[in-house]
Amino acid sequence: MVGMARWQPDARARLEAAALELFHERGFEQTKVTDIAARAGLDKRTFYRLFGDKREALFSGGKLLEDVLVRAVAETDAAPFETVIAAFHQVANEIFADRRDLVRVRQSIIESSPELQERDLRKTGSLAAAVAAALRAKGVGETTATLATESGATVFRAAFARWVAPGCDASLADLITEMAAELRAVTSASAAPAPNAATPTRRL
Amino acid sequence: MVGMARWQPDARARLEAAALELFHERGFEQTKVTDIAARAGLDKRTFYRLFGDKREALFSGGKLLEDVLVRAVAETDAAPFETVIAAFHQVANEIFADRRDLVRVRQSIIESSPELQERDLRKTGSLAAAVAAALRAKGVGETTATLATESGATVFRAAFARWVAPGCDASLADLITEMAAELRAVTSASAAPAPNAATPTRRL
Repeated sequence: MVGMARWQPDARARLEAAALELFHERGFEQTKVTDIAARAGLDKRTFYRLFGDKREALFSGGKLLEDVLVRAVAETDAAPFETVIAAFHQVANEIFADRRDLVRVRQSIIESSPELQERDLRKTGSLAAAVAAALRAKGVGETTATLATESGATVFRAAFARWVAPGCDASLADLITEMAAELRAVTSASAAPAPNAATPTRRL
Repeated sequence: MVGMARWQPDARARLEAAALELFHERGFEQTKVTDIAARAGLDKRTFYRLFGDKREALFSGGKLLEDVLVRAVAETDAAPFETVIAAFHQVANEIFADRRDLVRVRQSIIESSPELQERDLRKTGSLAAAVAAALRAKGVGETTATLATESGATVFRAAFARWVAPGCDASLADLITEMAAELRAVTSASAAPAPNAATPTRRL
């Protein structure tokens, strides 16, 4: 058991890398768990000890992402939206920065499968819930926590989409800063008209 | 065939109502298509002529929602975020206003099933894509269209969650106005510090 525990982290990383390679080479549907284990020099049993299913090999980084985000939210001393943006800056620098090629491959695999897209959406949803909970734990009200988290997630998604696009060489952190500024401009533009602003021509 | 075509709209509404009733009474998993058809006084064949599967009986309103949103975006003369908020006001008034009890029941059914939650998320995603496309069709740039749509969707979701909560009697339209104002406050608060604002204490 000691040996097993010692080797798990390595086995996990090897299986994840093998899964990414094979999904990329053969397609997600065409890849079997046995193939992934074989490519990693491990057996199927080891795979299932670490991952619930084939899809999980692509999503287990979500836990690290969540941990970094939640810790950054807890440790950042700023207004709620700024705190969320700072947390995304942190994951951009700690997790994504040096892995653009890998992330691009992973992204193209996810986009190839509706099943993976659904899993991705659900993971994103639970990540947002964790960030909002971390804000509430600091005493931020529920509505503000939700709005700051969702707005931060919008900024991150827009920045991320640009960052993985072919030919982009801007850093993810800079794109986050840029998109946060654009989101502020887009949402505050409409504040101008009047207190009763959200009711232009077409409102019944 | 003429008779069938004439009866389809009625059959659709009857099947949707029957599905909602049965999912509510027995649970989504426990309800069969045959039961839904029988409750509506129709047969299984008619059900499958109108819906791809059991889940669809709960989501076919999405098309109407999309049509109203897209039309409202096209017809509203305002800044992008304001346009999206105006479009959500319109669906609040035209589609949701008089149906809070039905919507509450539907929402509790969706929350009871991960399968329905996934379908709901995907439908929301395609709705957002349609709204962003409607903004781009008016000449709005891609990034602005995405940020305005996602921010509007954040406002709508926050307003909707309050509106369906037990005991709430505020109107959905008023909650949208309120949440739009809160989103502006939450995102613009962080604009204060400096141009380099999105990089507080924890940024690497």
